[in-house]
Amino acid sequence: MATDSTADTGETYAALVEHVTRMTNVQNAAGVLNWDQQVMMPDAGTPARSQQTAALSAVHHELLTDDDLAGYLDALDAGDLTPEQEAVVREVRREHERATRVPGDLVEEISETSSNALPVWQEAKGEDDFEKFAPTLEKLVELKREYAHHIDPDRDPYEVLFEEYEPYLGLDTAERVLERLREELVPLIDDVADSDADLASPFAGTYDEDAQETLVRDALDTLGYDWDRGRLDTAPHPFSMGTQFDARVTTRFNPEDPLDALGSTIHEFGHATYTQGLPQDHYGTPLGESRDLSVHESQSRLWENHVGRSRAFMDRFGPTVNDDLGTDVAARDLYEAANQIYPDNLIRVEADELTYHLHIILRFEIERDLLSGDLDVSEVPQVWNDKMEAYLGVRPETDAEGCLQDIHWTNGAFGYFPTYSLGSVLAAQLFAAAEDDLGDLDEKTRAGDFDPLRDWLVENVHQHGCRYTTDDLVEEATGEAFTADYFLDYAHDKFGDLYGL
Amino acid sequence: MATDSTADTGETYAALVEHVTRMTNVQNAAGVLNWDQQVMMPDAGTPARSQQTAALSAVHHELLTDDDLAGYLDALDAGDLTPEQEAVVREVRREHERATRVPGDLVEEISETSSNALPVWQEAKGEDDFEKFAPTLEKLVELKREYAHHIDPDRDPYEVLFEEYEPYLGLDTAERVLERLREELVPLIDDVADSDADLASPFAGTYDEDAQETLVRDALDTLGYDWDRGRLDTAPHPFSMGTQFDARVTTRFNPEDPLDALGSTIHEFGHATYTQGLPQDHYGTPLGESRDLSVHESQSRLWENHVGRSRAFMDRFGPTVNDDLGTDVAARDLYEAANQIYPDNLIRVEADELTYHLHIILRFEIERDLLSGDLDVSEVPQVWNDKMEAYLGVRPETDAEGCLQDIHWTNGAFGYFPTYSLGSVLAAQLFAAAEDDLGDLDEKTRAGDFDPLRDWLVENVHQHGCRYTTDDLVEEATGEAFTADYFLDYAHDKFGDLYGL
Repeated sequence: MATDSTADTGETYAALVEHVTRMTNVQNAAGVLNWDQQVMMPDAGTPARSQQTAALSAVHHELLTDDDLAGYLDALDAGDLTPEQEAVVREVRREHERATRVPGDLVEEISETSSNALPVWQEAKGEDDFEKFAPTLEKLVELKREYAHHIDPDRDPYEVLFEEYEPYLGLDTAERVLERLREELVPLIDDVADSDADLASPFAGTYDEDAQETLVRDALDTLGYDWDRGRLDTAPHPFSMGTQFDARVTTRFNPEDPLDALGSTIHEFGHATYTQGLPQDHYGTPLGESRDLSVHESQSRLWENHVGRSRAFMDRFGPTVNDDLGTDVAARDLYEAANQIYPDNLIRVEADELTYHLHIILRFEIERDLLSGDLDVSEVPQVWNDKMEAYLGVRPETDAEGCLQDIHWTNGAFGYFPTYSLGSVLAAQLFAAAEDDLGDLDEKTRAGDFDPLRDWLVENVHQHGCRYTTDDLVEEATGEAFTADYFLDYAHDKFGDLYGL
Repeated sequence: MATDSTADTGETYAALVEHVTRMTNVQNAAGVLNWDQQVMMPDAGTPARSQQTAALSAVHHELLTDDDLAGYLDALDAGDLTPEQEAVVREVRREHERATRVPGDLVEEISETSSNALPVWQEAKGEDDFEKFAPTLEKLVELKREYAHHIDPDRDPYEVLFEEYEPYLGLDTAERVLERLREELVPLIDDVADSDADLASPFAGTYDEDAQETLVRDALDTLGYDWDRGRLDTAPHPFSMGTQFDARVTTRFNPEDPLDALGSTIHEFGHATYTQGLPQDHYGTPLGESRDLSVHESQSRLWENHVGRSRAFMDRFGPTVNDDLGTDVAARDLYEAANQIYPDNLIRVEADELTYHLHIILRFEIERDLLSGDLDVSEVPQVWNDKMEAYLGVRPETDAEGCLQDIHWTNGAFGYFPTYSLGSVLAAQLFAAAEDDLGDLDEKTRAGDFDPLRDWLVENVHQHGCRYTTDDLVEEATGEAFTADYFLDYAHDKFGDLYGL
């Protein structure tokens, strides 16, 4: 009897894996279509491409919610599974349950409302007229509240939505971490603003695209990007896309600031390296998929900030920068230029490593209160501006530069923003743990020896795919729970040194 | 009652269109994946890409064979449909019936056998060892015979397979046309071989890729390629891909022969122009899809041969050729160089406009007899070589240069080859009909005025999508049934003039 049941479990599990692998393949096909749309497709292709993407999304949704899958999951409830199999079942069940609880009509209404919201938001932003966008935002808040209610009527809707992007860290942890960031970063940024340190701005004039492309390709070579399983292209908004067999990077060039492309290419390198480090044997199931947004962002931020913006990296890579751009900038000046803090910047996507988090915290607080009903949509501009003033000492003069600047709410993506900051925090924790194991990483950076760090990340993060929940993964990799300590130490050290605090 | 039934028909038809549109979108998504694989993807991406493509193909097959679709088709049998709706139902029913009749196991076995056949064929070709490939070829012939039997047990299996690629012209028509080509082209090529005309070979040395790319881009500009709905890239085997919103072209460069890239780019332009000319309003259903392979090939051959290889085109485009390549070749010499006949060439893909058809006819005759059982696999090399000798006066010394040269049989694609020649034949017929309507097309070519011809093709071919069957489309566009007359007249005139016959 026991043998029979094991055999059944084996068969059912195999059927589950086949089903899930098809879902993954459909989703990855959509990823290729999206890459193509942003990198290769002529604009006129949009009407057909939107339909193709929607069709794949519908196919994926049907596979995720269908009765076969429900049957496999039920049957495996009683089965005797290995820890790896249990992880696959856990991840698939979670997604299946969330998807089945929300009525199709509501999913469609949200998708339609978002589509229609885009031009409304663009117009409102263009005309600096929040009133134009307010009814749409209100509708999206209501719909997403309803959406959360279907998934779990007994919990705070914002918590449920947050778990869409970061299922395992818990909103309470996120809240605690973000509060601590606010408490410590606001005074630190104040000190920076008051400092009379004058950081170097060594670049003047413009730098042509070919030279900048050579520069970012050299950076990818230096860091060890696996070109055999990837490629570099340009896109209006840099992103990375792919699988462990083919993980691509995109970048863009700002003629006046070559460090912009360098930083964003290294950021995307971090994402792509995570993808390339996923186990090939498990392609198709959650064991071969990356963990959620905070972990993904930790990989990009670790390489972008802890490596790419370090003094050690500028010592190593500075000569290449000068060769490629025809400049003669000292390593210390490159380091300073890459780490300027701009407290009076209003725009999140242009923010530096410190103020960025205040931009995020402000959004987090607003969307959390919007979803709970503690804040009315009409109050958003006022609250936004008050918080900007309180956190960064600067007040937007227009809503276009204030609460209308981001596209995220237009997509109904409430709960997404915090993962950006959580990623930075985790990056610092992982970097510290790697240094504990490997010794001084700056020394290795100066020697151009990036393999140990990359291998450490593969071994401790990438190769696990979704085997562990995010909190378990953090614990496994670093030996302690998720904490802001390392990020704050790093921030105080680095910017204290740079600004003579 | 009548009103109710119409309302029902309307609803059912709308459901059919939604279902079919999803199928089209899944298929077009697979097209993007294929383009990416051939043009952009690193080789290492193959394992994941193969799975993604197979998943989309499986989804498409399930949509094509599912009960909902069968129900719509049944219900619409009795409905009162417009001619356009009837055409959609006709095309969808045809595909649905073929797909449902063949057992899934057999489809899978053919697909697996083909995959496994590829390395076997490559090795056999590399080692010039037909015996190695023979058992695989035999297996594929058997499987495809079985496949045809499932679709229609009462008809010649080759006829059934041929209709996979050209559903409406009828094998008897194809056979009659190909026989006539053989009868008239064999003596014409004999005369060419015996002629002492010495056609110009004005190119020597090598031409760099950038210059050649400028040349083919100029050609696409000259002919009126709509760059807003397309793009040009390089690929190992040139092809075109896309939809009426985004129809792309690829090419490749032979350093020693710039006319090679020019010809093949104009060929792919013809395919892409057909795709761009499909009605956008009907995207997703057969009314917005191109007719089958012969018609598609007629569009590429018309532009490649009747325009691109004409004396008039060389008069017009010669100066650009010389500018781009830094040469000084007279238009007449370009014309001669682009139209050389090589009777002793053994390789189909390198064949010229005349001998090409004998390469096709030979394959057609062999595969037809293989499927009927009149020819044994073991006899293929002997028969191949005998026919080469009879038709072209040249005998391959190896099977690698003979019956092992093409990949098609490895894919089990019996019945595909004839569509190449049928396309050329139809190109001539359409070109003659356009000239009847528009007046002297060479004159327009000399003036660089390609819009009238393109518009004529849009109006008479492209915009109809699959509304008409192939034979009806030919009749509508040209006023007569499919005929080899125009192609043979054209061949006699053109090569009679060039070779002084």
